[in-house]
Amino acid sequence: MTAPIRCAARLELTALPGIPVVGPGDDVAALLLAALERARIQLGAGDVLAVASKVLSRAEGRFVDLGRVEPSPRARTLAAEIDGDARLVELVLRESEAISRRARGVLVVRHRLGFVSANAGIDRSNAEPPGAAAGSGPWALLLPRAPDESAQRIRAALRAACGVDAGVVVTDSHGRPFRLGTVGVALGVAGLPALWDRRGELDLMGRQLLHAETALADQVAAAADLVAGQAAEGTPAVHIRGLWFRPGDSSARALIRPPGEDLYA
Amino acid sequence: MTAPIRCAARLELTALPGIPVVGPGDDVAALLLAALERARIQLGAGDVLAVASKVLSRAEGRFVDLGRVEPSPRARTLAAEIDGDARLVELVLRESEAISRRARGVLVVRHRLGFVSANAGIDRSNAEPPGAAAGSGPWALLLPRAPDESAQRIRAALRAACGVDAGVVVTDSHGRPFRLGTVGVALGVAGLPALWDRRGELDLMGRQLLHAETALADQVAAAADLVAGQAAEGTPAVHIRGLWFRPGDSSARALIRPPGEDLYA
Repeated sequence: MTAPIRCAARLELTALPGIPVVGPGDDVAALLLAALERARIQLGAGDVLAVASKVLSRAEGRFVDLGRVEPSPRARTLAAEIDGDARLVELVLRESEAISRRARGVLVVRHRLGFVSANAGIDRSNAEPPGAAAGSGPWALLLPRAPDESAQRIRAALRAACGVDAGVVVTDSHGRPFRLGTVGVALGVAGLPALWDRRGELDLMGRQLLHAETALADQVAAAADLVAGQAAEGTPAVHIRGLWFRPGDSSARALIRPPGEDLYA
Repeated sequence: MTAPIRCAARLELTALPGIPVVGPGDDVAALLLAALERARIQLGAGDVLAVASKVLSRAEGRFVDLGRVEPSPRARTLAAEIDGDARLVELVLRESEAISRRARGVLVVRHRLGFVSANAGIDRSNAEPPGAAAGSGPWALLLPRAPDESAQRIRAALRAACGVDAGVVVTDSHGRPFRLGTVGVALGVAGLPALWDRRGELDLMGRQLLHAETALADQVAAAADLVAGQAAEGTPAVHIRGLWFRPGDSSARALIRPPGEDLYA
């Protein structure tokens, strides 16, 4: 039996300054390392970097010129039904496995990566590629192809450069069924448990904890979102020190409720 | 036009040590002030305290001896249907306005406070009152009566003692429809905006941000949960410094999606 993961007594989150607007082919790990140096942070074992998925999307060139998207008949029908843009609906359908709900301008879908979100996470702000031709667009930006693998690659690059094991969380913002406002969620995770299973630990009275499986990586994403800012501030990466976890393999897939267990599927 | 709320560049969260197991009638604000002093933290303007709802529940004496609960016929029928404890189902019905979904051992309900959660947030860990008689119980702990008002009272007490305006968030942990693991959410909010409405701000390219209403207080609760620990560590309060917000009146009600706008109601 291994020791339980302990909670941190103190957590420090720092938005990494000076990360430029990323374009296709940029080396995100190198940009993060430069930003850490700029912030005078020496990466330590057990530190975590939260990186906005948008940065990876841009580095992967996931820009789509909506003006060049040809909607399928199904996309046209759905778009008419929700009073939405048929070209965007076409992209949403290509990125997703199933439609969960529809509302004015929104399709809530199960993304091919497994999670449920509005419009398959396709973004229309900050979605223009560098050097976009005049008259092109409007532009949309798809989510990164494989956020878990991106997180693993960044973690490996950090280890190679700094000699320490850090955690990496690729983040996005999701809306929620019952609550207003978006919150940070983890789309990719490397080096820390996405879910922290505390079942089996005892409460203050010595009783077993009930329902104590914490969405650790989602809470990291939410905390990072508090400091990152998504737009004007332009700080898409956050350094987190003081989180206590047992390093190891992980995947944001662990955070996805299987459709068969989803009361709201 | 007022200046937009800026994002913090650095956030520090500290779990406040040494808060005792709370009992009926305890003065939560006084316990928080003592814990701040113990942690050698001088409360500053714009600091935020996240306080677990369980502490308020215990101070309000919201303990219920399930052995003395008489289930109604409706509770008995529902309990048989979900294979649950009829006494607990009775409490859930008393605490809630409507049933959203039912599953084995769980009723997902709209709480009379407005939010949707499993079993009306009734807790069975750390649920025993101080000095419970031998043979009593099992015990359950209801949520605090009015978390927004509790947050306001704590905020007023902090102002009286320290002379500064701080924010207060009363937190709980909720499960989610599409995702596994619990995350911190705000049940009560005072002194900071529960929702941070960023619509109208511009993105990096000068386009208006879409869908940029952030659940600020929920993200504070999630970040606090990363450091608080729910049980063995016994640190039900977290001090947060570095969050940038415009002080003012608020309410956790702002985070509740009106049932008519809820695609999953």
